[in-house]
Amino acid sequence: MIKTGIIGSTGYAGKELVKILADHPEADIVFLSSNSFDNRKFSDVYPEFKGIMDDILIHTEKASEKFSDIDILFTALPHGLSFNFVRQAYEYGIKVIDLGADFRLKDTDIFEHWYKTKHICKDLLDKAVYGLPELWKDKIKNSQIIANPGCYTTAGILALAPALKYGLIDPYSIVIDAKSGITGAGRKIDLSLMFAECNESLKAYGIASHRHTPEIEQELSQVYGDQVYVTFTPHLIPMQRGILSTCYASLPAFCTQDEVYSLYREFYKDSPFIRIREEFVETRFVKDTNFCDISLRIDIRTKRLIVTSSIDNLVKGAAGQAVQNMNILFGLNEMEGLS
Amino acid sequence: MIKTGIIGSTGYAGKELVKILADHPEADIVFLSSNSFDNRKFSDVYPEFKGIMDDILIHTEKASEKFSDIDILFTALPHGLSFNFVRQAYEYGIKVIDLGADFRLKDTDIFEHWYKTKHICKDLLDKAVYGLPELWKDKIKNSQIIANPGCYTTAGILALAPALKYGLIDPYSIVIDAKSGITGAGRKIDLSLMFAECNESLKAYGIASHRHTPEIEQELSQVYGDQVYVTFTPHLIPMQRGILSTCYASLPAFCTQDEVYSLYREFYKDSPFIRIREEFVETRFVKDTNFCDISLRIDIRTKRLIVTSSIDNLVKGAAGQAVQNMNILFGLNEMEGLS
Amino acid sequence: MIKTGIIGSTGYAGKELVKILADHPEADIVFLSSNSFDNRKFSDVYPEFKGIMDDILIHTEKASEKFSDIDILFTALPHGLSFNFVRQAYEYGIKVIDLGADFRLKDTDIFEHWYKTKHICKDLLDKAVYGLPELWKDKIKNSQIIANPGCYTTAGILALAPALKYGLIDPYSIVIDAKSGITGAGRKIDLSLMFAECNESLKAYGIASHRHTPEIEQELSQVYGDQVYVTFTPHLIPMQRGILSTCYASLPAFCTQDEVYSLYREFYKDSPFIRIREEFVETRFVKDTNFCDISLRIDIRTKRLIVTSSIDNLVKGAAGQAVQNMNILFGLNEMEGLS
Amino acid sequence: MIKTGIIGSTGYAGKELVKILADHPEADIVFLSSNSFDNRKFSDVYPEFKGIMDDILIHTEKASEKFSDIDILFTALPHGLSFNFVRQAYEYGIKVIDLGADFRLKDTDIFEHWYKTKHICKDLLDKAVYGLPELWKDKIKNSQIIANPGCYTTAGILALAPALKYGLIDPYSIVIDAKSGITGAGRKIDLSLMFAECNESLKAYGIASHRHTPEIEQELSQVYGDQVYVTFTPHLIPMQRGILSTCYASLPAFCTQDEVYSLYREFYKDSPFIRIREEFVETRFVKDTNFCDISLRIDIRTKRLIVTSSIDNLVKGAAGQAVQNMNILFGLNEMEGLS
Repeated sequence: MIKTGIIGSTGYAGKELVKILADHPEADIVFLSSNSFDNRKFSDVYPEFKGIMDDILIHTEKASEKFSDIDILFTALPHGLSFNFVRQAYEYGIKVIDLGADFRLKDTDIFEHWYKTKHICKDLLDKAVYGLPELWKDKIKNSQIIANPGCYTTAGILALAPALKYGLIDPYSIVIDAKSGITGAGRKIDLSLMFAECNESLKAYGIASHRHTPEIEQELSQVYGDQVYVTFTPHLIPMQRGILSTCYASLPAFCTQDEVYSLYREFYKDSPFIRIREEFVETRFVKDTNFCDISLRIDIRTKRLIVTSSIDNLVKGAAGQAVQNMNILFGLNEMEGLS
Repeated sequence: MIKTGIIGSTGYAGKELVKILADHPEADIVFLSSNSFDNRKFSDVYPEFKGIMDDILIHTEKASEKFSDIDILFTALPHGLSFNFVRQAYEYGIKVIDLGADFRLKDTDIFEHWYKTKHICKDLLDKAVYGLPELWKDKIKNSQIIANPGCYTTAGILALAPALKYGLIDPYSIVIDAKSGITGAGRKIDLSLMFAECNESLKAYGIASHRHTPEIEQELSQVYGDQVYVTFTPHLIPMQRGILSTCYASLPAFCTQDEVYSLYREFYKDSPFIRIREEFVETRFVKDTNFCDISLRIDIRTKRLIVTSSIDNLVKGAAGQAVQNMNILFGLNEMEGLS
Repeated sequence: MIKTGIIGSTGYAGKELVKILADHPEADIVFLSSNSFDNRKFSDVYPEFKGIMDDILIHTEKASEKFSDIDILFTALPHGLSFNFVRQAYEYGIKVIDLGADFRLKDTDIFEHWYKTKHICKDLLDKAVYGLPELWKDKIKNSQIIANPGCYTTAGILALAPALKYGLIDPYSIVIDAKSGITGAGRKIDLSLMFAECNESLKAYGIASHRHTPEIEQELSQVYGDQVYVTFTPHLIPMQRGILSTCYASLPAFCTQDEVYSLYREFYKDSPFIRIREEFVETRFVKDTNFCDISLRIDIRTKRLIVTSSIDNLVKGAAGQAVQNMNILFGLNEMEGLS
Repeated sequence: MIKTGIIGSTGYAGKELVKILADHPEADIVFLSSNSFDNRKFSDVYPEFKGIMDDILIHTEKASEKFSDIDILFTALPHGLSFNFVRQAYEYGIKVIDLGADFRLKDTDIFEHWYKTKHICKDLLDKAVYGLPELWKDKIKNSQIIANPGCYTTAGILALAPALKYGLIDPYSIVIDAKSGITGAGRKIDLSLMFAECNESLKAYGIASHRHTPEIEQELSQVYGDQVYVTFTPHLIPMQRGILSTCYASLPAFCTQDEVYSLYREFYKDSPFIRIREEFVETRFVKDTNFCDISLRIDIRTKRLIVTSSIDNLVKGAAGQAVQNMNILFGLNEMEGLS
């Protein structure tokens, strides 16, 4: 059994991680930590877990004392707060999967520009791999630090990577219009996230300035082999879970929809969580699962490829992907505990 | 008092029209017709109108017998069903506002291609004006037939018309990603529109094939002075009302966000229902109103203009705009009964 | 024109009051006050009011300096905070309608027991009338202080008053099971009211302890002529507006449903906002209106009367009722500005 | 492995059953049948099952040809349609769990009165046991036919059985006010169940006439040892899943809340799916689980016990309970495949 610990277990991603690991046939939870709720039961914070996960939450500062008891650490914290825990875990010699942003961007100037936070683990960045298994499964296997991708990021990269890899689309023409359920904003208490404020409404936010933008660009540039820039616009939708990304790009050369479908199927032939669909995707089809559904259309009038992808933001967009990475790290079937 | 009649009064747009006209200080409702519910009270179909609008619905076929009693006819029917009523009203010499699609497209080949329906009133098309007052107020004043715009169309055209008029954007680069509440699908009984099927989910539909596309293109081409093609993608959102359009286009020449704001304000200076906003728009800000809110951002990294516009699909996207047109036709203040 | 001022204009009830008064043909808004947002525009707090209500909010402490400019003051504050404003307005000689709880309960012991707050205006209580026009219209006409009823209270009292008045039901058998949309909890920033926490869920709260209980009992006791106690259970429903009260009471003597309907119609024959319905009520039928819809059923197997009533919690349950009271105070048609 | 077949697999209860059985470590699905969708893949009807359950649906009429391949049959059909399948399965000698109403009521006069349908399997009724394991686990073990309880019924009976068993409450005083998410209405295409009609609204329905009433009364009477009648009122809530039952009954003798809690804990000490809670229950705490959460309060002012219970209508209220029954029938741990 893989012995796991979670730092930051009471946010929505942390909670989802607890849910998945508690059911995982090859993993045990050794400790759960939380700054906000330490010394309380996990099931006091999330009463649905009564009788299922009644462990006492320990303070985050005490978590490192438990590193000797675990094989892998998960950190699920706001940006800037994982640095020290990852370093400690690294030095302690255990694997660590960070669900936050601190180790995702390879260029610390870009990190510091978008996050307005000093990067204090530059020396560890080359030990870290970007944990999107559909792109980097082999690297993940041999890494000690996994930077688990963001939710919007996952949906956007998976939608566009094959098209860029095979040179189908103009890299200057990419627009990603993404829509997320409200858990995507995290469990923060904010007027704009109150039911009475955001139900029966819809908005774009963070236009031209959302922090997932450089992460998408970094990964798509790697796949493409040259620098890619994207316009990325997130939207908040009155539902709890799910992301739909509608991605647009110009097709410089003629190709048929069937050809594009074939290339996408080829690209993802070893990716059990990718489902290429003929029909349109809907977020409910991936709810509570680790799947990413992808559908393709060509607008022949305007010579554009339109790719829609959907994920559950808390599963494939966070905790599920983290467990998928854990499975890979420990030589398990990628889908273990996730189907 | 303006005497009005409504054919197709029991769909969602028809109902909204009844609501607005019943409160309009200068209009009276003479008759309401419905094929599905004739001989029943309007308040039996929509019980919220009990004590407010208890008129008996007449069959659509009997509506034309009442033309002598009205000054203006509203038709709110599925495409292909307004032709005869509009012709009768026209020949009778009364004004008619068609909330359907039958008189919106000037090119009947395009109409027949997209709607798979024969156009049987080609002779009347040059009597009809496209009823978007922000563009064609002067023409509307002197027309007898008003083709009231579609809901997605209104949001899309109003978002992009100034940018095209002033030559700010590349006309080949336009992407309109639109999101609509579920009343936009009409009051049709369909599995995919059941609460249990569409709540807590999100989807794109009609990708590269939605019928509002040629309507947007026709109007934007008129404004631009040359043919414009757009990629238009509608989405269904789990809320009842509201449309948000997120519109993307490339900026060939450098310009600042402030300059774009100034040009938009100039373009709409005589349009009381357009609110240019610095902050991001949200559909709740226009709910139950005839406003169209517009916000602008430039993504300097990718040299794109991003315009978000929001309307209430049943008001500015249907019934409110129809009443705005009526006000203009009868020389009233454009906002009468709509504020 | 009636000149009005509002203290506490930025909560949900205050906002609704602004909306109604801004459209009222016989009323002007002279000032809006807010502690939380003073010196900002009302339309900054509620952007939907841009171009409609852009007045600058004044601090609550400055409101009393404006009493010379108004005919009537509305206070919409949490309990315990209206005392001083009502006293000042009373002494100044202007009418005042308090949307809070401070003047609703005649027995200050009961007030202090349920609200854990000292009552500091005992001397004014006999100047105040409980502002439920369907029961006390004549008293309201001649009062200077109106204690506007609570939302649950309004729905519960209106559902049961006729049955108690006519001696149909056993006063010891009353159960009121009430369900409210989430704006009923006010505009407070609270984890349990976040979309991600309360959407797709349902709960009872305040069982056997909700503060609207003594208010319902006071009024029903008055109608009945003897002390009435009720079991009252509120529930929170994942929707924004609306209250449905399902009220149960035993029928000691045989009577038919038609007889009960007749008595209810008789009781409310001069109450234009009460709609007695044969069919079941739904909250959407009263949304954005000042109506209270009531439906009756007898369960002959268990000899119980079941009354369902529905209101919009922010209109008939708060701001609409306040304006109805204002209309009565100033000799206007009760429905002015409310239809 | 237990070999299972499902007749009526494409309704919401059927779908949930497929989901649970597909993951059950001790069960295999041998066939799925559907009248509406035969010859199509299950994953065409519910695209979320793509890659998980792609079996071809067989026509219901062909299902009985497969009885030799299965150990247990599940029927999930509207009332009146299970009779023949249950008889065939019975005569074939296999176990059968009917999720419909046909075998729940022991008195066929009552069945025929409430369901307006002739009961054509009177001879089988004494072979059938009412499948509520918390009451009848021992009987279930040895039965061949299990009548799986209704959703409202489960929540109501579990809330009140202990109070009646221990003689705490007056059996003539019971009121059950129940609230259900919209999947409770089944997957039927109906105007009143459309998102645009039932979102942001709330209603009671079937007042004093809902068919779950006699089922609740039959079971509570059994527990109490004498005839019990209840007033039962269902409500439709704008959410997808979940039932909350708020149950009221008078307490003839004094008892404390702690005493009631103790008796409830005692009653359910061998029931792993019952969670007695100190705090108020919420439907989200039982979502996607087979738990029934129960909370108790005494209103000392009115001498009433108020019990709130919550379940997931599709799990403990249908498919989960069916699998719980299957586990008991085959000697497995009651929670197998359900935790």
